[in-house]
Amino acid sequence: MVNAGLPGLPPATAADIARGVCRLLGAHGQGTLTEVTLRTGRRVDVMALAPDGRITVVEVKSSAQDYMSDRKWRDYLEFCDRFFFAVGESFPTEILPAEPGLIVADRFGGVVLREAPATPLAPARRKALTLKFALLGSQRMTRLLDPESGI
Amino acid sequence: MVNAGLPGLPPATAADIARGVCRLLGAHGQGTLTEVTLRTGRRVDVMALAPDGRITVVEVKSSAQDYMSDRKWRDYLEFCDRFFFAVGESFPTEILPAEPGLIVADRFGGVVLREAPATPLAPARRKALTLKFALLGSQRMTRLLDPESGI
Repeated sequence: MVNAGLPGLPPATAADIARGVCRLLGAHGQGTLTEVTLRTGRRVDVMALAPDGRITVVEVKSSAQDYMSDRKWRDYLEFCDRFFFAVGESFPTEILPAEPGLIVADRFGGVVLREAPATPLAPARRKALTLKFALLGSQRMTRLLDPESGI
Repeated sequence: MVNAGLPGLPPATAADIARGVCRLLGAHGQGTLTEVTLRTGRRVDVMALAPDGRITVVEVKSSAQDYMSDRKWRDYLEFCDRFFFAVGESFPTEILPAEPGLIVADRFGGVVLREAPATPLAPARRKALTLKFALLGSQRMTRLLDPESGI
């Protein structure tokens, strides 16, 4: 789980936080993919799919500056059933909006500090996102296993 | 594409054929996963998902003996929209049934010798298989990228 903040450890990077988020969601049986581009062109940091089909989007914010430079989180709500911010332990969480879910994570894991409200997907959007998620995950696997496949 | 059968090359193994099948289907935009266990307990060699949602199952047969020991291919039809056998170039294709699709492949690629007849999935089954495919692909990716995740 989250490191207890031992003195001298550097703050978690965005990649660390994303890894911890994937571990947290993965431990609950969810499949996770990082850096998923939506058809709007925006890219979500972590998209997760639960065994019941629910889709979660997690935006990683590694610093206050990172959050302040992109506050369009509401744009993600139509692409998921639940939306979370994920931050490192030293992040000033008081600057975040109160509505979305909140995860604190480091490279080893994470904890949900605040559950995300349900924002159920429209059926056609869920179907399209699930298919996209399935294609993307399997194609990334193929590229890893067979880098010369040209896929 | 398929190697022209240069003398002295060993016959394609099942793993070679599966890789070539994945390359063939992947080149057509399909996502592929190998060794997918169905809820019946049977394991399919290659399952593929097309961008339009169609699901293909490919059973690899590396030798006549391999085919003769397992002829229950009809059991797969309710789990896909199209079913193919895939074999190496030296396989005696005359022993295969005439109905399913047929791919000849080696480790570098494959060609469709006979298209598979359409066996459209029931909607609930398609939904369940797509979700399973999405979870499996993303979880395998996570395990490759983060082997110590415990996922």
